Amino acid sequence: LPSKLPAGKTSIFSVMSGLARKHKAIDLSQGFPNFETDNHLKDLVCKAMKDGYNQYPPMSGVWALRTRIAEKIAALYDICYDFETEILVTNGATQALYCAINAFVHPGDEVIVFKPAYDSYEPDIKLAGGKPVLVELKGKNFKIDWQEVEAKITSKTRMIIINTPHNPTGTVLSKNDMQQLEKLIRCTNIILLSDEVYEHLIFDDEVHESASKFPGLAERAIVCASFGKTFHNTGWKMGYCVAPEVLMKEIIKLHQATVFCVNHPMQRAFAEYLKKPEHYLQLGDFYQQKRDKFFDLMQGSGFKGTPSKGTYFQVMDYSKITDEPDVDFAKRLITEHGLAAIPVSVFHKNGKDHKQLRFCFAKTDETLEKAAEILHKL
Amino acid sequence: LPSKLPAGKTSIFSVMSGLARKHKAIDLSQGFPNFETDNHLKDLVCKAMKDGYNQYPPMSGVWALRTRIAEKIAALYDICYDFETEILVTNGATQALYCAINAFVHPGDEVIVFKPAYDSYEPDIKLAGGKPVLVELKGKNFKIDWQEVEAKITSKTRMIIINTPHNPTGTVLSKNDMQQLEKLIRCTNIILLSDEVYEHLIFDDEVHESASKFPGLAERAIVCASFGKTFHNTGWKMGYCVAPEVLMKEIIKLHQATVFCVNHPMQRAFAEYLKKPEHYLQLGDFYQQKRDKFFDLMQGSGFKGTPSKGTYFQVMDYSKITDEPDVDFAKRLITEHGLAAIPVSVFHKNGKDHKQLRFCFAKTDETLEKAAEILHKL
Ligand SMILES: CSCCC(=O)C(=O)O
Ligand SMILES: CSCCC(=O)C(=O)O
Repeated sequence: LPSKLPAGKTSIFSVMSGLARKHKAIDLSQGFPNFETDNHLKDLVCKAMKDGYNQYPPMSGVWALRTRIAEKIAALYDICYDFETEILVTNGATQALYCAINAFVHPGDEVIVFKPAYDSYEPDIKLAGGKPVLVELKGKNFKIDWQEVEAKITSKTRMIIINTPHNPTGTVLSKNDMQQLEKLIRCTNIILLSDEVYEHLIFDDEVHESASKFPGLAERAIVCASFGKTFHNTGWKMGYCVAPEVLMKEIIKLHQATVFCVNHPMQRAFAEYLKKPEHYLQLGDFYQQKRDKFFDLMQGSGFKGTPSKGTYFQVMDYSKITDEPDVDFAKRLITEHGLAAIPVSVFHKNGKDHKQLRFCFAKTDETLEKAAEILHKL
Repeated sequence: LPSKLPAGKTSIFSVMSGLARKHKAIDLSQGFPNFETDNHLKDLVCKAMKDGYNQYPPMSGVWALRTRIAEKIAALYDICYDFETEILVTNGATQALYCAINAFVHPGDEVIVFKPAYDSYEPDIKLAGGKPVLVELKGKNFKIDWQEVEAKITSKTRMIIINTPHNPTGTVLSKNDMQQLEKLIRCTNIILLSDEVYEHLIFDDEVHESASKFPGLAERAIVCASFGKTFHNTGWKMGYCVAPEVLMKEIIKLHQATVFCVNHPMQRAFAEYLKKPEHYLQLGDFYQQKRDKFFDLMQGSGFKGTPSKGTYFQVMDYSKITDEPDVDFAKRLITEHGLAAIPVSVFHKNGKDHKQLRFCFAKTDETLEKAAEILHKL
């Protein structure tokens, strides 16, 4: 039986969370909060079910929700997407990424991916028959070398995937980065896929430079966003993507085929909840405190790192503690010490081991304290 | 921009439901009930959210739900699927169908599809680069000519798709059909995809012959099922598929890529709700009454048909009323008469027009009466 994805493995996020459950470990591995989503939002879901929104919604999403999304993006990024033709509600950002890649990448096409990278891009590209062209982020601050990108663009380059704020490194792309990218692809047929699921989780003086802000990018960009990351309910599997109509109409073909439509009562709930921008505008401050808390707690431990600028992840170097490969160290941390984290090698080209772990700090202060206590003893 | 699905159109079910909404028509088009899902089930979702099941569930589905599904299938079809490795909770049966087809169909592979057929199979096959090989159902009772199937099997045949009870015709496959199929593919590498989303909607003395019941089929079958169809909540987007581990492990790769996992609180709710088999075992009786009601109401109208044996659809011939093409007639029915139905040509090979409409009778008696009143006047 020939496989579509011979090397396809269970995602490290499933594996580590599964192990954490099994060993009842403190789980700082897979990216999800261990505190609760707003009770008001839960009430809105219950109300929507009670109000009878339990059958198929419109395929691309309910109008009220798409309207709210259009308003939100207009307010934040100063661009108007047409809610009828340019906004698609998806079963989480994962589905948006899959559909975007599979709508446009044909067998033999090349897709530029920056490494380290989230683990779903490359399988998605391979499933489409495409070829990932890897460009490594440079130096301690994981900068993009735009000259290298330019050199790697060929006539087969169909797509470039960026991710800002960046999982796992917590870095963000600058305005200058986006302008360089704009210059590079403005006169090409290259499609930009911009994974911005952590758009509201941004710290210190950083600004989220959405691809939507740059006309030369927005005209050729699919921008993916996540309600799960933003509203603390990753298990509700809700997200969306926006793109110019010419791209969106192809993405919708994949959407129709893969899921047809998305949970109706939850769409109604988000349509209501999004009326209050404070529900997402305060998120950066909230998570900055979490980051500070975790980073401070880790001072004096054997783990070293630079404070994350965005996302709810903190990467730390453990080379002072052991020279074990990160996958082994991460497994031993769970089984012997009751703490789960993600080995960063899974994000790297050829799984290169940098002796780093990624910790998710979307956790209660109590959990972060217990975690730090364990990590200090190593 | 080359398209992955150049001829891909918006599903007729979206189009007609959209038109019905716009014209405030009585909607017997897209297959969903207009009565409510059980309040107890809604309460279970609210409870699951309150109990904190709001983050990522295990990728294949929560264990409790997969266990319930395994128990249900064992009780009904006398086969034990391993809940750990052979059961996958999906974002509706649509996603299960997509993943099953895209996991196994490689460019150039042939897939046998019986026509008329549900409209997602062929796009799914084409997206995988495969070639649909169409076999027409024969006669008034839409029987499968197994000799023709045998003749159409080649060394490239990767998969056969069956659908029982059958949308749109409301026919069901017999034990003899399944045995013929078993004989035909037992010693081949052909995979069987069995779409059984209407498994519990079966009438008169008919028996649902699940592919799971036949060892020679089950060993090579992916069987798809739907909670939305069974529990009156199509907008919750929950379903599942079962398959032997050797197949399931490939399907899960597609599942991980397309959605990663499925709504957590709703999985918890179904895990609880499925403990009571009466919740689905009474469904056949319930819908048989609906079918009888609708069929009786239509007596004396210009529409003719044979009572549906399963599903919640009734196909009727309107050739006594007009010789308009069914797509035109269906559109005019909405705009001029305020009633939506599905033109059956969309299910047929080359969209052949048989002067038939499909009516969904999963509606309140009041709605069915109003619909019949309109249809009698034509
Ligand atoms: C979809 S599971 C992965 C969650 C996540 O974004 C991460 O942990 O990096
Ligand atoms: C997923 S929309 C189509 C619903 C349905 O099964 C039908 O109307 O045939």
